[in-house]
Amino acid sequence: MPRPPSPQLLDRLQALLGDKGFSDDADAMAPWLTDWRGKYHGRAAAMLSPATTGEVAAVVRLCAQEDAALVPQGGNSGMVGGATPDSSGTQLLLSLRRMNRLRAIDEQAQLAVVEAGMILENFHHAVLDHGLRFPLTLGGKGSATIGGLVSTNAGGTQVLRHGTMRALVAGVEAVLPDGSVFDGLAPLKKDNRGYDLKQLLCGAEGTLGIVTAACLRLVPAAAARATAWIGLASPDVALQLLRRLDAALGPSLEGFELIPHRCLDAVLRHIPQTRAPLDPPHPWYALVELAGEADDDLDARLETELAAAFESALIGDVVLAKNEAESDAFWRLRDSISEAERADGPALQHDVSVPVDLMPRFIAENPGRLAAAFPGIRALSFGHLGDGNVHHHVQPPEGVDGAAWLAAHGEDASRLVYRHVLELGGSISAEHGIGQLKRDLLAELDSPARLAALRGVKAGLDPAGLFNPGKLIG
Amino acid sequence: MPRPPSPQLLDRLQALLGDKGFSDDADAMAPWLTDWRGKYHGRAAAMLSPATTGEVAAVVRLCAQEDAALVPQGGNSGMVGGATPDSSGTQLLLSLRRMNRLRAIDEQAQLAVVEAGMILENFHHAVLDHGLRFPLTLGGKGSATIGGLVSTNAGGTQVLRHGTMRALVAGVEAVLPDGSVFDGLAPLKKDNRGYDLKQLLCGAEGTLGIVTAACLRLVPAAAARATAWIGLASPDVALQLLRRLDAALGPSLEGFELIPHRCLDAVLRHIPQTRAPLDPPHPWYALVELAGEADDDLDARLETELAAAFESALIGDVVLAKNEAESDAFWRLRDSISEAERADGPALQHDVSVPVDLMPRFIAENPGRLAAAFPGIRALSFGHLGDGNVHHHVQPPEGVDGAAWLAAHGEDASRLVYRHVLELGGSISAEHGIGQLKRDLLAELDSPARLAALRGVKAGLDPAGLFNPGKLIG
Repeated sequence: MPRPPSPQLLDRLQALLGDKGFSDDADAMAPWLTDWRGKYHGRAAAMLSPATTGEVAAVVRLCAQEDAALVPQGGNSGMVGGATPDSSGTQLLLSLRRMNRLRAIDEQAQLAVVEAGMILENFHHAVLDHGLRFPLTLGGKGSATIGGLVSTNAGGTQVLRHGTMRALVAGVEAVLPDGSVFDGLAPLKKDNRGYDLKQLLCGAEGTLGIVTAACLRLVPAAAARATAWIGLASPDVALQLLRRLDAALGPSLEGFELIPHRCLDAVLRHIPQTRAPLDPPHPWYALVELAGEADDDLDARLETELAAAFESALIGDVVLAKNEAESDAFWRLRDSISEAERADGPALQHDVSVPVDLMPRFIAENPGRLAAAFPGIRALSFGHLGDGNVHHHVQPPEGVDGAAWLAAHGEDASRLVYRHVLELGGSISAEHGIGQLKRDLLAELDSPARLAALRGVKAGLDPAGLFNPGKLIG
Repeated sequence: MPRPPSPQLLDRLQALLGDKGFSDDADAMAPWLTDWRGKYHGRAAAMLSPATTGEVAAVVRLCAQEDAALVPQGGNSGMVGGATPDSSGTQLLLSLRRMNRLRAIDEQAQLAVVEAGMILENFHHAVLDHGLRFPLTLGGKGSATIGGLVSTNAGGTQVLRHGTMRALVAGVEAVLPDGSVFDGLAPLKKDNRGYDLKQLLCGAEGTLGIVTAACLRLVPAAAARATAWIGLASPDVALQLLRRLDAALGPSLEGFELIPHRCLDAVLRHIPQTRAPLDPPHPWYALVELAGEADDDLDARLETELAAAFESALIGDVVLAKNEAESDAFWRLRDSISEAERADGPALQHDVSVPVDLMPRFIAENPGRLAAAFPGIRALSFGHLGDGNVHHHVQPPEGVDGAAWLAAHGEDASRLVYRHVLELGGSISAEHGIGQLKRDLLAELDSPARLAALRGVKAGLDPAGLFNPGKLIG
């Protein structure tokens, strides 16, 4: 069990890190002690901001001597409170944001070594200067850091083609709970020297190691894209279309988002300067994007495939973006769903996954199950169909006081969603992680075999429980 | 520490598994107690051959009660003694070969669920009946089993495009050291519920869990292939060619093997019915293969790219296979290297990897380092250039008694190779694993941080050390 840091430890940490790297000033720490969603409010004995891997290792060694707890943090933009300390005021916040250098880039090998604190959007720009692209992006790109993205195995809208962070990490450097530095940055395509620590640290939410740098895979910068907004009858049909496009267009197909008409409707009602791409409306839409080299003639290829899908009555209607501005407008409709929904009132949000094949079934069946238990309740699914990952939002019945209804029934309704997901072999956290938000839920719903194994790994690597206590599993 | 099984435990195991699943007959066990290379000879208290996951779990629970050690085994075709019990006669050999069913195949989703004991070649045939292909193959495909391939994170000749086993495993079922069953078969593309146990079991050599089944990704059956034999000046040029072909041909490029002329020469001298594809000879060759749909016109695409490479003097000469028989003949040259080399006398074999970029440098510099320490010594590198993985073989000086020379100097010469690999950030085991063969080498040469972490994971998941003791790190 961790213990509160002694005044001597705090002095030593201050001496080690200097004024730039140490603060116990409440005002200076405040922005970093509340999570992005404003749901968790923590306290910290101090905020530590080391500038080098050596400093991180020295911090960990000092803290390990006293069993002091460390809570690593990147951009503080996580969705599950994974980077917020508890309210005891005895934990130490370890910010990686000062470690924000691009250490190296290899254009030939299409690899970059980048420190944990670099912000994703800055990394995008840095590699673009070399004619390359890092093919992972998400809403929080202006604040999310590389270390946080690795530690949460982040996803986003390009997972369909390029995978989650796990697939893009060629190497990792991390400080382990004993203060040693694991140097796994070398980008080995084959390495069978036992357990893959790199993969283990990916998605471990800072509970097993402090990621200080990563070697990341890059792809050539996309010179062209083609975007289509497609009207269709059901998620089932959307999956058929996805399979067809995947077989025909393969590596060019980078995005395939599923959107129900009710989501589009909310966007059109609440978000200024939006308009429906298709008239009349369809029950469901797919937003499809291809990316590739300049000479790929993506528009023509996409048009050919969609014309064939239309001919065989798989899809109801389609419009291709004529230029970048139209592409952006289509994506703005997709990206505004959460904002529009908030304007419609409170909702329960579930970030869940099931095997891709079963996603249409989940989307079709879950609203009925919910309505049987909670008459009038409304469910909306949208998102990454090709990843088997939807954002499944549940709204209170119309006409009731939404906040009061959610306070009374929200937890039970969410349980029903999660149990359905687990019945289908799915996950209660597709891309946001566990953190504080789902820690108790995981302990309640996951299989005893899996929970015991997770706890075994944690105990084996961090026996004193000093790294991010209270998150994920302990 | 494991203890010898009591007579009562053996009785209970026999009662559980019946005659088909239990044997303590020395003759029946003999073939499974010596490894494929004939290097390790073990003994076992009994051989257990459960037929179901439930039986495996029951075996593990019974053994855990007495701290009896289990050594899992698939096709017994590993290269590092990882599936051979020690010589004490107190370990139990756990064969998965009776669990050999294809449980399910989903043509739409291109996924198959297959039990651990199914032989790779049988699996190839089973999915081919569905118009699909499992894109991992290797020399031992007639005996290697799915469980062993998962547990060793097997590689092979198609890793360049499709990755090692790790990339092809969509789900895993395994029995953990406490006898619980981890059901991770659901093929979730996104799942952020903490540590990725599936990835942890991949390559763990049976030291953390007994893999009982896997859900594997498939690709459409290849309807066409194009094969070229290319003469060029150096590994450096070969890497440039690989980069060029990869950019131009992308997903079609499935094989890129590097072969020095001395390897080809040995094949031509020792293997009947072989002939050199090019005349006059070149210092190095690349064997390149594309695979794809029938209408891809692969030959034309490959010819265009290679003609351009020839025009720019990147390559010296090239011959394309005119038909399947010629393709097979080219691959036979590659696949016969080990056999030809054995006919030339004993050699030290090293299965090593470095970052792809550094491979030409390793190949260029290592022979000089060796010769400086051991005058007259000869080194040969061949294999998977694009994976940064060569088979680096070292032959004694000409004219000496090879066996005696190796006995005197072999270990020191190998140390020199491994230290060079580690200097370049590489791995002392690229694809064969650690097993017994490299256990002490790993403990000697790997970084203390990494070793401590490996030991922590092992202790956390298998505190009594019952799964495959004496292998990898234990």
